[in-house]
Amino acid sequence: MAAEHTGKGLLLKADPIASNFREEIKAALAQSPKPPKLVGILSTASAPSKSYAEFTKKQCDDLRVDFVLKKVGSALDPALSDGEGVEEAIIEANEDDSVDGIMVYYPIYGVQQDHYLQQVVSPFKDVEGLNFKFHYNLYHNIRYLKPQSLLSTAVQDPPPPAVEDRPPPGTVKSILPCTPLAIVKCLEHIGVYNTILPYGDRAYGKTVTVINRSEVVGRPLAALLANDGARVFSVDIDSIQEYTKRPRQKADAPNASRYHPRHVVHPCSLTLQECLAHSDVVVSAVPNASYKVKTEWLKDGCVCLNVAADKNFDKDVREKASLYMPTIGKVTITMLLRNLLRLQEYRKILAEDAKQEKSS
Amino acid sequence: MAAEHTGKGLLLKADPIASNFREEIKAALAQSPKPPKLVGILSTASAPSKSYAEFTKKQCDDLRVDFVLKKVGSALDPALSDGEGVEEAIIEANEDDSVDGIMVYYPIYGVQQDHYLQQVVSPFKDVEGLNFKFHYNLYHNIRYLKPQSLLSTAVQDPPPPAVEDRPPPGTVKSILPCTPLAIVKCLEHIGVYNTILPYGDRAYGKTVTVINRSEVVGRPLAALLANDGARVFSVDIDSIQEYTKRPRQKADAPNASRYHPRHVVHPCSLTLQECLAHSDVVVSAVPNASYKVKTEWLKDGCVCLNVAADKNFDKDVREKASLYMPTIGKVTITMLLRNLLRLQEYRKILAEDAKQEKSS
Repeated sequence: MAAEHTGKGLLLKADPIASNFREEIKAALAQSPKPPKLVGILSTASAPSKSYAEFTKKQCDDLRVDFVLKKVGSALDPALSDGEGVEEAIIEANEDDSVDGIMVYYPIYGVQQDHYLQQVVSPFKDVEGLNFKFHYNLYHNIRYLKPQSLLSTAVQDPPPPAVEDRPPPGTVKSILPCTPLAIVKCLEHIGVYNTILPYGDRAYGKTVTVINRSEVVGRPLAALLANDGARVFSVDIDSIQEYTKRPRQKADAPNASRYHPRHVVHPCSLTLQECLAHSDVVVSAVPNASYKVKTEWLKDGCVCLNVAADKNFDKDVREKASLYMPTIGKVTITMLLRNLLRLQEYRKILAEDAKQEKSS
Repeated sequence: MAAEHTGKGLLLKADPIASNFREEIKAALAQSPKPPKLVGILSTASAPSKSYAEFTKKQCDDLRVDFVLKKVGSALDPALSDGEGVEEAIIEANEDDSVDGIMVYYPIYGVQQDHYLQQVVSPFKDVEGLNFKFHYNLYHNIRYLKPQSLLSTAVQDPPPPAVEDRPPPGTVKSILPCTPLAIVKCLEHIGVYNTILPYGDRAYGKTVTVINRSEVVGRPLAALLANDGARVFSVDIDSIQEYTKRPRQKADAPNASRYHPRHVVHPCSLTLQECLAHSDVVVSAVPNASYKVKTEWLKDGCVCLNVAADKNFDKDVREKASLYMPTIGKVTITMLLRNLLRLQEYRKILAEDAKQEKSS
């Protein structure tokens, strides 16, 4: 790519990032006596869901993860309706001890009912990281947990902010939703995260615009980035908000803490054009083929990530962007498989706890 | 009203229905040593939310329930944004042992983020019945629970269908979401439920159209009615579904069970006009002032309930309807206060369990 001295920004594919993680997963799997089993539940006749299921299968086969595709509803039989039997299939997989992870292909019914289904998936098998418990931890910057805590509906008290990327003894990392996590991993790879800075604040100094504020992608992403120190503009169809850990005004007291333990959300009166003019990074995830981020509004040398199925950036985006990633799907799937391994660990710790409790 | 022999259907107000329940609540409160405390959390400057909060206060004062209105965000200070501080206020009320119930005035952010907030409310204080645990029980026709079960993220196995309106020993009734519950109570009062039929199947023989399929009103209502034996058409902006406990075809085996333990959802190819032509009851909850159910499409002598803030029925609705309820808000608030008493009972049982466990 160094040969491409066209003055244009670099076009970055997801493959090299994904392959790093694939090696990590392979190494972990080599030490495992039995390949983990992932159940994919396909309940609609939607073509993108079907091809995503095939893509999951291929990735799992490559890594020797045991992928089982369970088809229900219109995916099984065109006479059945979308989503018919999906809840029953989730409950069956929850109860099946041989299953390590469950992935449901959304959208099925629409955001509200899909959100209900996401809560039906046991947190111990939730490779997508969509269970309320994981969202709560993410929003509250709770990075580590005891697997035991997932048995309870009570929420965790926030611990002091994490200062290193290693779970304290007796705890493991909290599962993060795949897509926001994949975006963070891409930004780490690209160098947006500065590893010289202390853990937990490595995006400090960076301004990011995230276009989308769904509970699946945009809001958790904005919170993750702000919890890591970035200043984030969260852009929705009808409002712009600012997510930041830093206090807005300089604190009067000289010993005032430099930042909040987690992000705080403020209303923002800037326009999208003004946000983009400030932004080192622009992530767009608008599910609309005709939506485009105007290249002329971008800050020269910024980094652009497209997370939508359609391209949210114009063809000439690299006239302004120093780096452009048109798709990150391959990284997302590796994050999902990484979550699968982590959930195996959760259940192992839980079983050990139960054994210990029994013998004491 | 008997004097009103105009040939038009009856206009039924919510007051007489609500006052029955108010008497029941008063009697229960008279035996309680301390009035229960309900915290209302108002976090937006929205006028309907503000007047709903005032209405709650008035109802609570009447019944000597201790209502505390907690204002945050733009409800507290116009310089703050909608929803600012709402999550923190919920967590504070969850942790405050003197609080028996929490009510949050929605909408705040929109369905997705509001759904997240609904899960932050502890199930032990969820007077609105919006926690996933209660929704799961409703959809699975699980009517009774042990309060202990609300501590766990694991879902309950469905018991055999309930045959009487009395919780088996050691269990209490599962909280139901206020609005759907209030609608069911109105239909019971109106005589749509037939008390001669066995408990759990008293809406058998009735066909109901529910216009709205949100997770807060329409879908739980359709499920409740179908679990009680009704045939329900669930109408959404882009589809119609049929909810029923009854098998679609006559079972071949003579001993085949007469119905499923809970409702099953089928796609439906009828149009709204065809659904209405079959419907004994029409419930509409469309949040759009210009939406109207056509009077000419209604079945002569049907029962119509308007649950939307605006009127979803035309002025001449009583030319066709035998009974019309333009609003049910007063019943909804009594259901909320009934849930408050029930949650007090949950927490009492839980405390007794803990004491017993300690002493054994």
